[in-house]
Amino acid sequence: MARVRVGIIGVSGYTGAELLRLVQAHPELELTYVAAQSTAGKRLDDVLPHTLGVVGVGDRSIERFDPAQAAALARRVEVVFTALPHGASAEVVAALYDAGLGVVDLSADFRLRDADTYATWYHTHPRPELLDRAVYGLPELHRSELEGARLVAAPGCYPTTSILPLAPLLTAGLIEPDGIVIDAKSGVSGAGRTPTASYHFPETSEGLRPYKVAGTHRHLPEIEQELSTCAGRSVTITFTPHLVPMTRGLLAVAYARPRAGVSAEQCREAARATYATGLVSVLPAGRLPDTLWVRGSARALVAYELDSRTGLLLALCATDNLAKGASAQAVQALNVARGLPEAAGLPLLATFP
Amino acid sequence: MARVRVGIIGVSGYTGAELLRLVQAHPELELTYVAAQSTAGKRLDDVLPHTLGVVGVGDRSIERFDPAQAAALARRVEVVFTALPHGASAEVVAALYDAGLGVVDLSADFRLRDADTYATWYHTHPRPELLDRAVYGLPELHRSELEGARLVAAPGCYPTTSILPLAPLLTAGLIEPDGIVIDAKSGVSGAGRTPTASYHFPETSEGLRPYKVAGTHRHLPEIEQELSTCAGRSVTITFTPHLVPMTRGLLAVAYARPRAGVSAEQCREAARATYATGLVSVLPAGRLPDTLWVRGSARALVAYELDSRTGLLLALCATDNLAKGASAQAVQALNVARGLPEAAGLPLLATFP
Amino acid sequence: MARVRVGIIGVSGYTGAELLRLVQAHPELELTYVAAQSTAGKRLDDVLPHTLGVVGVGDRSIERFDPAQAAALARRVEVVFTALPHGASAEVVAALYDAGLGVVDLSADFRLRDADTYATWYHTHPRPELLDRAVYGLPELHRSELEGARLVAAPGCYPTTSILPLAPLLTAGLIEPDGIVIDAKSGVSGAGRTPTASYHFPETSEGLRPYKVAGTHRHLPEIEQELSTCAGRSVTITFTPHLVPMTRGLLAVAYARPRAGVSAEQCREAARATYATGLVSVLPAGRLPDTLWVRGSARALVAYELDSRTGLLLALCATDNLAKGASAQAVQALNVARGLPEAAGLPLLATFP
Amino acid sequence: MARVRVGIIGVSGYTGAELLRLVQAHPELELTYVAAQSTAGKRLDDVLPHTLGVVGVGDRSIERFDPAQAAALARRVEVVFTALPHGASAEVVAALYDAGLGVVDLSADFRLRDADTYATWYHTHPRPELLDRAVYGLPELHRSELEGARLVAAPGCYPTTSILPLAPLLTAGLIEPDGIVIDAKSGVSGAGRTPTASYHFPETSEGLRPYKVAGTHRHLPEIEQELSTCAGRSVTITFTPHLVPMTRGLLAVAYARPRAGVSAEQCREAARATYATGLVSVLPAGRLPDTLWVRGSARALVAYELDSRTGLLLALCATDNLAKGASAQAVQALNVARGLPEAAGLPLLATFP
Repeated sequence: MARVRVGIIGVSGYTGAELLRLVQAHPELELTYVAAQSTAGKRLDDVLPHTLGVVGVGDRSIERFDPAQAAALARRVEVVFTALPHGASAEVVAALYDAGLGVVDLSADFRLRDADTYATWYHTHPRPELLDRAVYGLPELHRSELEGARLVAAPGCYPTTSILPLAPLLTAGLIEPDGIVIDAKSGVSGAGRTPTASYHFPETSEGLRPYKVAGTHRHLPEIEQELSTCAGRSVTITFTPHLVPMTRGLLAVAYARPRAGVSAEQCREAARATYATGLVSVLPAGRLPDTLWVRGSARALVAYELDSRTGLLLALCATDNLAKGASAQAVQALNVARGLPEAAGLPLLATFP
Repeated sequence: MARVRVGIIGVSGYTGAELLRLVQAHPELELTYVAAQSTAGKRLDDVLPHTLGVVGVGDRSIERFDPAQAAALARRVEVVFTALPHGASAEVVAALYDAGLGVVDLSADFRLRDADTYATWYHTHPRPELLDRAVYGLPELHRSELEGARLVAAPGCYPTTSILPLAPLLTAGLIEPDGIVIDAKSGVSGAGRTPTASYHFPETSEGLRPYKVAGTHRHLPEIEQELSTCAGRSVTITFTPHLVPMTRGLLAVAYARPRAGVSAEQCREAARATYATGLVSVLPAGRLPDTLWVRGSARALVAYELDSRTGLLLALCATDNLAKGASAQAVQALNVARGLPEAAGLPLLATFP
Repeated sequence: MARVRVGIIGVSGYTGAELLRLVQAHPELELTYVAAQSTAGKRLDDVLPHTLGVVGVGDRSIERFDPAQAAALARRVEVVFTALPHGASAEVVAALYDAGLGVVDLSADFRLRDADTYATWYHTHPRPELLDRAVYGLPELHRSELEGARLVAAPGCYPTTSILPLAPLLTAGLIEPDGIVIDAKSGVSGAGRTPTASYHFPETSEGLRPYKVAGTHRHLPEIEQELSTCAGRSVTITFTPHLVPMTRGLLAVAYARPRAGVSAEQCREAARATYATGLVSVLPAGRLPDTLWVRGSARALVAYELDSRTGLLLALCATDNLAKGASAQAVQALNVARGLPEAAGLPLLATFP
Repeated sequence: MARVRVGIIGVSGYTGAELLRLVQAHPELELTYVAAQSTAGKRLDDVLPHTLGVVGVGDRSIERFDPAQAAALARRVEVVFTALPHGASAEVVAALYDAGLGVVDLSADFRLRDADTYATWYHTHPRPELLDRAVYGLPELHRSELEGARLVAAPGCYPTTSILPLAPLLTAGLIEPDGIVIDAKSGVSGAGRTPTASYHFPETSEGLRPYKVAGTHRHLPEIEQELSTCAGRSVTITFTPHLVPMTRGLLAVAYARPRAGVSAEQCREAARATYATGLVSVLPAGRLPDTLWVRGSARALVAYELDSRTGLLLALCATDNLAKGASAQAVQALNVARGLPEAAGLPLLATFP
């Protein structure tokens, strides 16, 4: 069977580079197009030095995507991954979609179903009519909608890692939907490839810091949208992101009040049932996740512990923010959309250590 | 005026090494005695290689402390810092105290006022009658008790960093004492100097992990004891410690429900009033603490933010776990006990970057 | 065509774990046996936590290899990777070999062709008669010998990274064989998985140190053996290894005197000719290798620069010490030995960043 | 005795910040002036966040230095540290010097005695007549010239760490001056505070890379100038700098051919004699330096080993690039210039770990 011909627009950032790695290793995908905005015209190995010497990859030219030629592009590519900044992505996605291409968008532009909410957190949405067409690309929760989907909004790293441990509990009514706190910690690659003072090595190494606390981080409406769907009512979250001195990895620790009599093992069972297929592993009692264990892997690890002194439940999740938190999940969603095995071509084992 | 002659027992661990650095630089202290258990008989630079070539330090012999000779030791030393494992410390401290020496103990052995609580979390206390004599060495909260004290129990790193942001709020009744969650993150030096698989560089770098969650960490009763005192009633905490891939630094983020109408600025004002003297700086609105900013410094940074969407208050604190979280605070407590200026000899500025 | 059934003995160390990752992702290999010494009897996910939740991997039991049952093992496995400490490996390898199995040994036990040299640097070789049967598993230099080989001695990380940039130059007579200096720098995973004070995170992070300098490192005879073969005469090297605060990566910078009139570009051409096939990429003029660019990749990067002020040539090479420096190269050698495409199943692109 | 009133121009970079730390802790210095170029007008704690809450420091305004008011400045300050980029520094230094102030310049502008050499590596020197007045601020080698000096050119980090281990050997004729190779490795803070792609955390962590190899690094003429003076003849060096994923630390490993019969111990003795006073410690046989052991310390560690197999001598040195490699050495030079004890106010013990 012919491999699916895919393209990557926005190849020169970190999620683009991770897509490149995953697509190259995927037996059912064939990379036929790479493009980027500011680096168009350069050789790939000038922009992504780890491709130096990889024949057919590093020597490739980065193209410039022209929306006017989206129809012509459709002869070279079946599906395009767009890894562009939010705002910049919407028009590119729309042009590709209108030309009949499949699109997996890694920006935030099609994740929120409600245009008003998008406008509150970002700006006026340029193509609100497409929001209904987009499927939120968290395969473990939206598998059937993803089958055959032509526009996938791949989730953010914080949302993926925050939603996965809580969704089964809210769906099953095991926890109260009010008062949930999520304390999340991310590696630095989550901030992207643009060098700024905040991510300058000497001021990042040996430093740990919270940022955009108290309801100001843009991933919050995305988390609340999905958790509200699970709960069947509106859920509002206290969310605290942190920057941790490591390159990859995301850990979310959620604090929630369990419904009367609910045990940690019941939570594990609910999660095991929800995640019987897919790329989420539920850890046994007594084991807690470590981001190192999923570095480079497409998998997520979730765990549950109950604090018997205070009655609070801890729901924990670790992912690689660039893999399950971004590019690997985008490929997983594509696999589902195209009828391939969900884990096809994806690394299950971390690069350990 | 003659300098105070001090000794360090347990010099070969990390808090011992940090004490050595601080005592050497302190104009009012004179180091006249260093001892350790397993490394007794060695030269100091065999055990602490950064002392190689420092005349009068690296070439010093590590002595073995013999409780039977505590009285003789009293002719060489006025105050001893004990930096020994809990359990091992109590008898050493008792012998020194009985010989009339001043003691600043960095173990957990004299931090809990209640022998039963100690027994619950550790083991039967060997010298419970001394618990009443010990003053909890958090100078910002126990300054007057510390003046003239002869037995100081220097606080743990998690307790220091957890108590400081919450104490003024509980004392002033600005937050509810129930339902407080503390999500804390520590650098690896907090785990001590014994090499184990958990702290082997390849399995620590690029890894972030929670541990001893859900009410199982031994620093919990110490936090609860102090916060209960502030609140004037029993306080029970949900506490989650994490290991972060950095050597030094501790960040605590506490989530609490403010009393009706309380603002973040009121919390800052309460903290500024409490910490008008001492080594705690209250950050202005909009600035959040980073552990890098206190690396090597004796100071703590606290901050407050209110989440207007959920009504929760965030109380945050960053310290260097070996400095304000251990050895620098021990020296600060000694300064107070001996009537020296509270910050005498202590580094205020971090080693940045 | 049936996949080759392979086993791993010594799966619980870092080279074992890396073999596991690579074999799992290899379409032509099937893992049918995992064993280890001290961890036999445990589940794999108790020992390698990143396998938690990977069905068919993490839930596998680690077996204990019994030399007396090597013949029985031959019914389950065709080729065994042995990743054991030197000394311990020789007898295991001999038992496997005698039972007719193929063996790729990652220890130092079969790398030196001369039993006396082995005895000088290690101890008396227990099975010297096998030394002649072993092929040194550096496919770029020993490809034809490897074809059909049944006993492969996979090279060490320092030797791989030191030999690759120099071999083409010595073979072509472009540099003087005398006076070569190799200054090499390794990530910490090269020291293995046993936790000791030297690799305790707080004493490794922010520390850079040379060790076993001045002709005392055991990888030296291996480097000299191969370079002497290339030069057609005995070559003696000044070799300085360093430990660098990173988990993976090895960089060797060799200093050599070029023969009269030799340019850096001639050196690049010689290397391009030698490495036209295989997994070594020669960088163009002006680009220098970075270990980050091969993290997780089976490739090596080599580069050459001439110092016109002093006339010295720099020959540089970067590898991932666990990949091209160990396990990926072992798989590459197996590929050659079994007639598979040399790069079959191996990651070419690094996990970047 | 009144403290020396000092100023810092260029306080917002890393050497400026380190000067601030050292001056604040120095009992004989009083900081009366801080200035910077691009950050003038801001509060110090806006630019250097670790000064937040340090009364009298963080709340200070950064001034703008105006050469026309240098004479007025002389009423507020006796000595100024200038920590500006090369090129920008010369005019500032000249204005201060002309106004009668003492200056310790941390740029490269006054390090080279020969204006033509400066022009070759940088650009035409704007104030060549001052080159004769400047004393190279390596106190261990230029102590008597520094006494009373009014213009000090503080050495670079690579030069300091490269010169110290070799100077005693060249002066005593223990090694051949030809063919010396220096392989040096630096922490990232040596590259300064401007964020660029090269020092973006995700592309620096887990990466090790050489740069400006083969006679292209601007610190080379400075190294050669000082070593030529020691040797009494022109010395040309092969110099390879590397970037190491750590914030602070510099390690130089020099390879040299000893004169006939010279032992490593003779080299140690020569170094001990040269460094009997000052801040350089000579390690005993068998101990090798680690950058961690001098992190935050004003000291340098040197060591010597002879490779009996090849006859080459290794001369090694570790420093903190911001301390002995820059700011602490600048303070040490000032101490000597002003007749203070050479180590006054300087940290001897590293912040370990």
